[in-house]
Amino acid sequence: MNALYQVLQEEIALSEKEWHTLREIVKPKTIKAKTMLLRAGQIAREFYFIEEGLLRVYHLENGKEVNTYFSCDHQFISTFRSMITQSASLEYLEAIEESRILCIPYQSLLQLYDENPKLERLGRTFAEKNYLCVINRSSNLQTKTAKERYLDFIETHSPKIIRRVPQYQIASYLGIEPESLSRIRKQLAIS
Amino acid sequence: MNALYQVLQEEIALSEKEWHTLREIVKPKTIKAKTMLLRAGQIAREFYFIEEGLLRVYHLENGKEVNTYFSCDHQFISTFRSMITQSASLEYLEAIEESRILCIPYQSLLQLYDENPKLERLGRTFAEKNYLCVINRSSNLQTKTAKERYLDFIETHSPKIIRRVPQYQIASYLGIEPESLSRIRKQLAIS
Repeated sequence: MNALYQVLQEEIALSEKEWHTLREIVKPKTIKAKTMLLRAGQIAREFYFIEEGLLRVYHLENGKEVNTYFSCDHQFISTFRSMITQSASLEYLEAIEESRILCIPYQSLLQLYDENPKLERLGRTFAEKNYLCVINRSSNLQTKTAKERYLDFIETHSPKIIRRVPQYQIASYLGIEPESLSRIRKQLAIS
Repeated sequence: MNALYQVLQEEIALSEKEWHTLREIVKPKTIKAKTMLLRAGQIAREFYFIEEGLLRVYHLENGKEVNTYFSCDHQFISTFRSMITQSASLEYLEAIEESRILCIPYQSLLQLYDENPKLERLGRTFAEKNYLCVINRSSNLQTKTAKERYLDFIETHSPKIIRRVPQYQIASYLGIEPESLSRIRKQLAIS
């Protein structure tokens, strides 16, 4: 759990005592590629810290998968709306590769906030990041060209995500056809 | 400031002591209709609690105003992305009617979080509400008909907003032409 400790240290500068209460509720798990951690219709009872691996969140639009979030080593991932409203998810959360994850139960975390208000900063920064992610993606889709969107994707995502997420899944995140992404990548390699 | 106290009591159950530190940083202001509290390009240094009034957030798309948020008595309003990233706003924040507001400086609030971690819950719930607002609006625009979007608007907004925000501004929020909204309203009045 060292990686989680380090990320939290940087994020919210938690004390040894706070770390010990937090690690009590965290459960490690290894999951195979294609494991579905949550399906549409289910309620998200936990969120995840990835020790090593690659996961995605997507939903269906006219039967077609639309990716909205990728996450890899030392990052968090959740189906955030379902979790904070405790209502049925519209999204799916799936492992792209075999992954070692830490499961953090949402109700236990809410209790920890009551007992250790400083941990609430984790909730605030997590909510703010989810907000920025949604608003940036939707404003990019509205205002930027496909090429600009891809350049922005490269700039804001880990090298592991750029290298290892299949190209057709990145295309789906960018709201373009795989062929268009392939053309853009060729252009960028030449110029 | 009674209204703010009551809202915060319900929201985060703050103590007398926390309330006294918080009220120190809050500044009351009365602004005329059409007052622009923030323009695109400026950085949001504060957010607002409305004691009485009506405000909106909008941005420009091809020179046309697109409303994304309305707020009235006893509610908060901000240009959230600009505030939490302290970067230039893409949005405008304007008073629709004359309003009595309380200005809450963002930097002072961050300091208060350090001194009174319990207040951080305010930051978490505020971020979560902004997240839900953005994701619900964008998923409504993608998946619902104009009539469904209007019914959802009525269900999720205060009667004051529904009555007093000009119809063409509600139409802009819903992503439809004013004539379509007028047709929908007539249909609903009949059925």
